[in-house]
Amino acid sequence: MKTTLAAVAQQIAARLVGDGGLEVENVASIASAKAGDLVFAEDEGALAQALGSGATAVIAGDFAGKNKASKPLLIAHVPKLAFARAARLLCPARIFEPGIHSSAMVEDSARLGRHICIEPGAVVGDKVVIGDRTRIGAGSAIGADVRMGSECNIAPNVTIYPGVRLGNRVIVHSGAVLGSDGFGYVRDPASGRYEKFPQIGGLEIGDDVEIGANTTVDRGALDLTVIGRGTKLDNLVHVGHNVRIGEDVVIAAQTGFSGSITVENGAVIGGQVGIGDHARIERGVILGSQCGVLPKKVVRGPGTVFWGTPARPLRQYLKELAVLARLGKRAGVSSS
Amino acid sequence: MKTTLAAVAQQIAARLVGDGGLEVENVASIASAKAGDLVFAEDEGALAQALGSGATAVIAGDFAGKNKASKPLLIAHVPKLAFARAARLLCPARIFEPGIHSSAMVEDSARLGRHICIEPGAVVGDKVVIGDRTRIGAGSAIGADVRMGSECNIAPNVTIYPGVRLGNRVIVHSGAVLGSDGFGYVRDPASGRYEKFPQIGGLEIGDDVEIGANTTVDRGALDLTVIGRGTKLDNLVHVGHNVRIGEDVVIAAQTGFSGSITVENGAVIGGQVGIGDHARIERGVILGSQCGVLPKKVVRGPGTVFWGTPARPLRQYLKELAVLARLGKRAGVSSS
Amino acid sequence: MKTTLAAVAQQIAARLVGDGGLEVENVASIASAKAGDLVFAEDEGALAQALGSGATAVIAGDFAGKNKASKPLLIAHVPKLAFARAARLLCPARIFEPGIHSSAMVEDSARLGRHICIEPGAVVGDKVVIGDRTRIGAGSAIGADVRMGSECNIAPNVTIYPGVRLGNRVIVHSGAVLGSDGFGYVRDPASGRYEKFPQIGGLEIGDDVEIGANTTVDRGALDLTVIGRGTKLDNLVHVGHNVRIGEDVVIAAQTGFSGSITVENGAVIGGQVGIGDHARIERGVILGSQCGVLPKKVVRGPGTVFWGTPARPLRQYLKELAVLARLGKRAGVSSS
Repeated sequence: MKTTLAAVAQQIAARLVGDGGLEVENVASIASAKAGDLVFAEDEGALAQALGSGATAVIAGDFAGKNKASKPLLIAHVPKLAFARAARLLCPARIFEPGIHSSAMVEDSARLGRHICIEPGAVVGDKVVIGDRTRIGAGSAIGADVRMGSECNIAPNVTIYPGVRLGNRVIVHSGAVLGSDGFGYVRDPASGRYEKFPQIGGLEIGDDVEIGANTTVDRGALDLTVIGRGTKLDNLVHVGHNVRIGEDVVIAAQTGFSGSITVENGAVIGGQVGIGDHARIERGVILGSQCGVLPKKVVRGPGTVFWGTPARPLRQYLKELAVLARLGKRAGVSSS
Repeated sequence: MKTTLAAVAQQIAARLVGDGGLEVENVASIASAKAGDLVFAEDEGALAQALGSGATAVIAGDFAGKNKASKPLLIAHVPKLAFARAARLLCPARIFEPGIHSSAMVEDSARLGRHICIEPGAVVGDKVVIGDRTRIGAGSAIGADVRMGSECNIAPNVTIYPGVRLGNRVIVHSGAVLGSDGFGYVRDPASGRYEKFPQIGGLEIGDDVEIGANTTVDRGALDLTVIGRGTKLDNLVHVGHNVRIGEDVVIAAQTGFSGSITVENGAVIGGQVGIGDHARIERGVILGSQCGVLPKKVVRGPGTVFWGTPARPLRQYLKELAVLARLGKRAGVSSS
Repeated sequence: MKTTLAAVAQQIAARLVGDGGLEVENVASIASAKAGDLVFAEDEGALAQALGSGATAVIAGDFAGKNKASKPLLIAHVPKLAFARAARLLCPARIFEPGIHSSAMVEDSARLGRHICIEPGAVVGDKVVIGDRTRIGAGSAIGADVRMGSECNIAPNVTIYPGVRLGNRVIVHSGAVLGSDGFGYVRDPASGRYEKFPQIGGLEIGDDVEIGANTTVDRGALDLTVIGRGTKLDNLVHVGHNVRIGEDVVIAAQTGFSGSITVENGAVIGGQVGIGDHARIERGVILGSQCGVLPKKVVRGPGTVFWGTPARPLRQYLKELAVLARLGKRAGVSSS
């Protein structure tokens, strides 16, 4: 969408340095930028590269704008954030054409908002409630009594089990499964066999949550599983029953949560992390990739980084690694 | 479903203490229980909480029932098991209305039992055999020559490749893929390219198995992959070709089995465990979360707990952790 | 398919020793072989077993054929490779009957090659281009502007997001998701909330790639994600945005790639491996299962095996393990 730099600057609240009449129509990486593209630079080095690229203009931080640049600049405190906002302006998310495809199966008892898009082969169950401008992708199955807000984007081949609640603007990528049974059994000591413990709780997902492809989130056993507003889950994440994840938490791919875990607001959780039953990850904690948190463990300290299994503060972990490497090397010498 | 306590007690073989004429209609956690709910307590502390909750009655162990309680008690040896059974009574699993939806595609050569439910958009291939009262969820694809027993519950968007066999009462959650090709190639030394090794074996799944959301189980290469009766797989588990898992095994989320592994009856396997080719996990072994078992390793000892990579007995693992922590701390002191 | 040994030998370029007029019609493992089956043996021990099996003939290496054998032999330099090729001959991949099922939804603007099979409930979006003899499995959703080559096999319930490119003979197993949004957000320091960074790049997958069940491959953020010719991904693998994987790479199940990683040709990557942002895995490197590669790390050395987290050469890793075990044991003695 062609827009003048002046208009972009105004909308993203950036300070324009240079010719505001020039037009941009796309965003790009510095490496691939061509005329008409807008790029961003977070430091002097990137700015030099950006100015040498084919881009029409550059979003840069406060560090820029002192010297005269060869391209127009848009100065913002957080250039990457300004760039993300400019991208939404120039490349707006795909609009899904409203309408219910003739091959979709929508129960009569479902209550649909306005301008909803239901794609081919999607199935919308009994008494489902869907807000305005929400999309249900091809082949997705929305179970009975599910309620979701407006402007949700449910990609193709998603499954939502009965009774799950989603807020507004929730994005769910393909293959995700929401509200499946938790993993709970009781062993009969007489027979040695496992019997299913009831998995009849709910699942509530807040506004502005994004859920990655093939991620699974189980319903509660007797109570709720909850994912708070603004939290983002990457692909192939597993969230067990009764887990309560706060707001603005980010969780990278393939991380797994056992049951009844609490994650407080603003935690940052790397990829392939494993967290045991009933653990508590407190506000703002950072868990490094592949680390393991033991059951019932409480992990504390906003901004503190934890690594390893069992998870320990990064500083301690690095010392242990260094000691081990030294001992390993010495052992090598003495045995050779 | 409203039922008298006397009737519940009789059906779950519990001893009733108190007014058997009172009615319950649901199960709940102690925290959320209200009038009409039945809860359970495994120890004195939980019992005190349960008696202080809104629940109508409490299932408790033999430890209770000596003192007079403020609510009716149902005394059972394993209160959680009794509770699970009461839950099945009060909240019976959803009955799927029999019938084949007009949008489902069922080949004429398929042989369907009685009272089968085939939901919208499901596809049932050539010569498939399905037992009585089985459900095929919306959008699930059942390949040619698949045979499954009675009272299976195949959730929406499951894929079962041709020729797979399932027993009775098998539950398969959404997104699971059963019978996909194993991961086997042969490198041509001349070209450096990989060619596919045949993946033409079968997959057999026993009675009462439950398979979690987005779990994948590959067919055998030339022979069979087997999952034994009563075994439970959590979400996002991977089972490679030619793996043979015994009966009453539980496997937590995101665990992966390479090829040709044997797991004997009654093993308990944590989450994010990785097991190498041709390993053998013997009867009743417990593998802690995130542990790694090397290829060809035999892991022995019913009830023995293994941790770490490579997996070693918990006692040894803890000692090593303690030594490492001590050395790390000392290193910290000497270098500061 | 019944074929004479002479014909098999000729087609797989093996040297026949024995009666070429005998017919075989299937391949099998030594353990399950019966009359009419062809098996293979990579060493003397396996050959002895094979000759004692029910198989009609044996593919063996150059080591065989000196002594007189009790069954006809087909002698090849790489018996397993010859066997894989014989398997393709005797058990050709299933032919998918050409045709578009009446319940499939194919946009008028799609350009379809000849002899294409589009199964029930599949959805083919606007301007999609599909080459000759490609199969689109039941319930798969192919987004707008996707282009794929000829002889691809897209299993049921696959999702391909708009604009993804696939080469020829690409196999995609069920539940795989190709081209979903990468995991990229920018935190607004004012509100503490995450905003979506644009995920508008592409995904290109080369010829002869195979992608396992429930694997997810994200599109690039601004540029491309690329998977090179001949590369094989097992089940439940995660590939983040802007990753570039070379040719003839094999990646075992549940391995995860963060963003902007480079993997060079011929690397071999075990299961449950985690690789951090911007790492580079150089040509021919072997990463052991469960190992972890730190962000920006460069891992070098064709044929070198790396283990552990952070990944280090196997020799070093084993020394460290040994030291740790010794210290653990000593600690056990002194504390008892």
